[in-house]
Amino acid sequence: MAKLARSVFSVDVSGLDTALGRPAHTRIADRIRAAIISGALTLNARLPSGRILAKDLRVARNTVDAALGQLVADGYVIRRRGAGSFVAGRLPMRDLRPRVPKRATMSKIRNADPVLSQRAQALKLYPGHYRPISTLPFAPSLPPVDLFPRKVWNRLLSREATRTGSDYWEYGASNGLAVLREAIAAHSAAMRATHCSPEQVIVVTSTQQAVELAGKVLADPGDSAWAEMPGYQPVQHCLRAAGLRVIQVPVDQEGLDVRAGRILGPFARLAYVTPAHQYPLGYEMSLKRRKALFEWAQEQKAYIVEDDYDGDYRYEGRPIASLQGMDQNGCVIYVGSFNKILFPALRIAYAIVPVPLIGAFVDAKHVADGHTALLTQGVLAAFINEGHLARHLRDTRAFYDERRLAFLEEAETLADLLDFGPASAGMHVTGIFKDRIRRADDRSVATECARSSVMVDPLSKYGDIARRGLVFGFAGASRAISRSGLQVVRRAIVAVNS
Amino acid sequence: MAKLARSVFSVDVSGLDTALGRPAHTRIADRIRAAIISGALTLNARLPSGRILAKDLRVARNTVDAALGQLVADGYVIRRRGAGSFVAGRLPMRDLRPRVPKRATMSKIRNADPVLSQRAQALKLYPGHYRPISTLPFAPSLPPVDLFPRKVWNRLLSREATRTGSDYWEYGASNGLAVLREAIAAHSAAMRATHCSPEQVIVVTSTQQAVELAGKVLADPGDSAWAEMPGYQPVQHCLRAAGLRVIQVPVDQEGLDVRAGRILGPFARLAYVTPAHQYPLGYEMSLKRRKALFEWAQEQKAYIVEDDYDGDYRYEGRPIASLQGMDQNGCVIYVGSFNKILFPALRIAYAIVPVPLIGAFVDAKHVADGHTALLTQGVLAAFINEGHLARHLRDTRAFYDERRLAFLEEAETLADLLDFGPASAGMHVTGIFKDRIRRADDRSVATECARSSVMVDPLSKYGDIARRGLVFGFAGASRAISRSGLQVVRRAIVAVNS
Repeated sequence: MAKLARSVFSVDVSGLDTALGRPAHTRIADRIRAAIISGALTLNARLPSGRILAKDLRVARNTVDAALGQLVADGYVIRRRGAGSFVAGRLPMRDLRPRVPKRATMSKIRNADPVLSQRAQALKLYPGHYRPISTLPFAPSLPPVDLFPRKVWNRLLSREATRTGSDYWEYGASNGLAVLREAIAAHSAAMRATHCSPEQVIVVTSTQQAVELAGKVLADPGDSAWAEMPGYQPVQHCLRAAGLRVIQVPVDQEGLDVRAGRILGPFARLAYVTPAHQYPLGYEMSLKRRKALFEWAQEQKAYIVEDDYDGDYRYEGRPIASLQGMDQNGCVIYVGSFNKILFPALRIAYAIVPVPLIGAFVDAKHVADGHTALLTQGVLAAFINEGHLARHLRDTRAFYDERRLAFLEEAETLADLLDFGPASAGMHVTGIFKDRIRRADDRSVATECARSSVMVDPLSKYGDIARRGLVFGFAGASRAISRSGLQVVRRAIVAVNS
Repeated sequence: MAKLARSVFSVDVSGLDTALGRPAHTRIADRIRAAIISGALTLNARLPSGRILAKDLRVARNTVDAALGQLVADGYVIRRRGAGSFVAGRLPMRDLRPRVPKRATMSKIRNADPVLSQRAQALKLYPGHYRPISTLPFAPSLPPVDLFPRKVWNRLLSREATRTGSDYWEYGASNGLAVLREAIAAHSAAMRATHCSPEQVIVVTSTQQAVELAGKVLADPGDSAWAEMPGYQPVQHCLRAAGLRVIQVPVDQEGLDVRAGRILGPFARLAYVTPAHQYPLGYEMSLKRRKALFEWAQEQKAYIVEDDYDGDYRYEGRPIASLQGMDQNGCVIYVGSFNKILFPALRIAYAIVPVPLIGAFVDAKHVADGHTALLTQGVLAAFINEGHLARHLRDTRAFYDERRLAFLEEAETLADLLDFGPASAGMHVTGIFKDRIRRADDRSVATECARSSVMVDPLSKYGDIARRGLVFGFAGASRAISRSGLQVVRRAIVAVNS
């Protein structure tokens, strides 16, 4: 019990704390209260006697009595004559939630503006911390969560969690569980024509982490990186967070304009691209451009970061080759993620890196966060190896395809306003404003739509300075919802443009 | 089935791929083989007819037949007369594991030395990717894994995983689940006298991630940071990975020597310290030094990163106050981790940050990896709130204390060689070489010990240039093992010093 008292009630009554001017008995009462609220002391538990507490905490008996008196008065502790003191059987109502210091106490502020690094200040421009789930049309890129076979997943979870041995409990390798790396190498070879050994797979938590690792491994602060304009802004922030200067390279119907990149930033250390399905315009990078990109990388000894964010969803035409599979020179870092195709809370993605870079990526991942959580890796490996991933992809592909076709049919009613880009893959389609409304403010259109609970992303949000338009996610909307949603969009465009 | 063929067999037979000079039939055979090995095509599954495959893949019937012929010859596919082609019922022996390209094919190397960033090259100095689990004496800081109540954890895991609703499946907030942040705020207040609201808690994956986020938020590349010498090297690598210059500030029996820090790097943006139990020397930072550190931070508008890596394990004397709880000016970032006290594969740690920095930390965490996996956060919150964490800490504390006492008794046999530092907390103790052997090479001693399966860390590994000695983890060794292990150490010291 003495040890318990010292630990659970660990109250600093030395000079360190009295220096702060709070009386010892208040401090002791606060700590015991916190232990009760946190569950460290269970309800109805018997407390050590005042004498023992005083001895263990090396304070006067009076001090302990004052602390206990305060707790009794507040309803946390009950005294039973002859039996001692006990934690109350139920907590005072106001403290069912942990106690939060009042704003005034809590805001220990040195000055109103904290001293932030420049890069932290730059991150304030980040478009949003996270996208709260929305079933509204046309919130981009959110898979309907009820398509995921939770029961299957949970069965594998239980099975793996109860395995004997310590593989899921001890430190793991920074590049990920071998069984998962093998499954990923086979899966991405089968689905995306990548060409790699399991050793080249680095398991990470997210596309963002993969891109940030690539930024760190391949470039130093002050170096520059190509990114697509318009393009996926969060990834550009990752590159900036790694200290890189991001050069916006325009995208046209053939994908990233390599010639423009050579003019804007010939000595960039890496190029971030979405060749299979440009985000957000939807174009596939042409063979000519792929060759030009490889040539530039070869010349500059630069690297290509290929984000294959929705390569598993292709509905029409021939499959699109991955750059990784075409790469002859070991200059492509391929990035894939399971967070979108399975469920966002999963937090498992991967990079496939050229052999000579394996060590550097493992080092960087190790320093970043040690390794990715292991049990989940084991469950995902089983999910892939036992065929559930392939089945889930088949099911969701069919489902999205149906919604895609419905959306495209309904979207013909907007053909006088928007030029829709390719929609043969993925879960979104972009409509560019036609010439006669090309100056309309797409952000205002989006705001106007939001008033009627229709979510469209303005193309401006993706950093485009040449075009304006709207990005529609079609995976979340039934035909009827698509129809009414598109009517809202039409009214919004007309209202903003008039 | 057509869709299946396009997707599962997705074979690029366009110019993109034939440009690489591999015949289409080989490519098709490779992809089908990969689909079989990966489980995307299940054993005994019926394949589409050659005619349908040819149509879907837009290749000649001959090409498909050649591919299937190859697969039949290799044993992956079986032809049943009149019934069609089927995946074999069992895979050829050599391919029970995914196919790995041969080294020569796999090493697409542009040049023998890849172009790495300077910071990636610096990481090559990293002392090791991960510490494979070892039950050998005296591997530092590894809790005996069998003390962890796996059954309790797994029960909570099952319960939380099968909860209805989507909280554990959708995107989550970047700062972590509210219920976990509340539990952490209460726990750290109760155990470590921190003083914060749940809003100030940022859930991360590891101490490393917390320190790297702090480095990014508080400093720009080229800025400098204080770290302890000797000190925990992996964290110093985190700071370097964030672009910071690390200034080694000497540690003495009062902790970090603030005056030396002011001379070596007066304008550092942050100071990384382990005030409760200096790693690895074991000293507690004195009140005088704490005040000096606060004064410096106040003057420079710098921040203090407090790594409280084993604050939950204190065996003797009064509890040590956290700097966070003493902080009057909002200049402390407190870092705690559950990976060591529960199990290393968990990957949940946290930072408690001053109110004005909350937004910047959330931004940085969002960009780094979105958010930490959610289900595990929910399980941990339940584990804390239902009293299991407090119980586990009590159990392990008693266990470690027993081992600590046994180790210290046995270690008296080395009192002529080593000056042991404080051992009133944590899971390790450091022995400094006594004067007469102070020049002995501690790395050689460690190597010599390793030959007899005794693991000690040389103090040199922690970057000390003034002292030599050995770091012992005592949590993994019984009394008998401690005794024989210490005999090995004695012999090694004598051998190296003679």
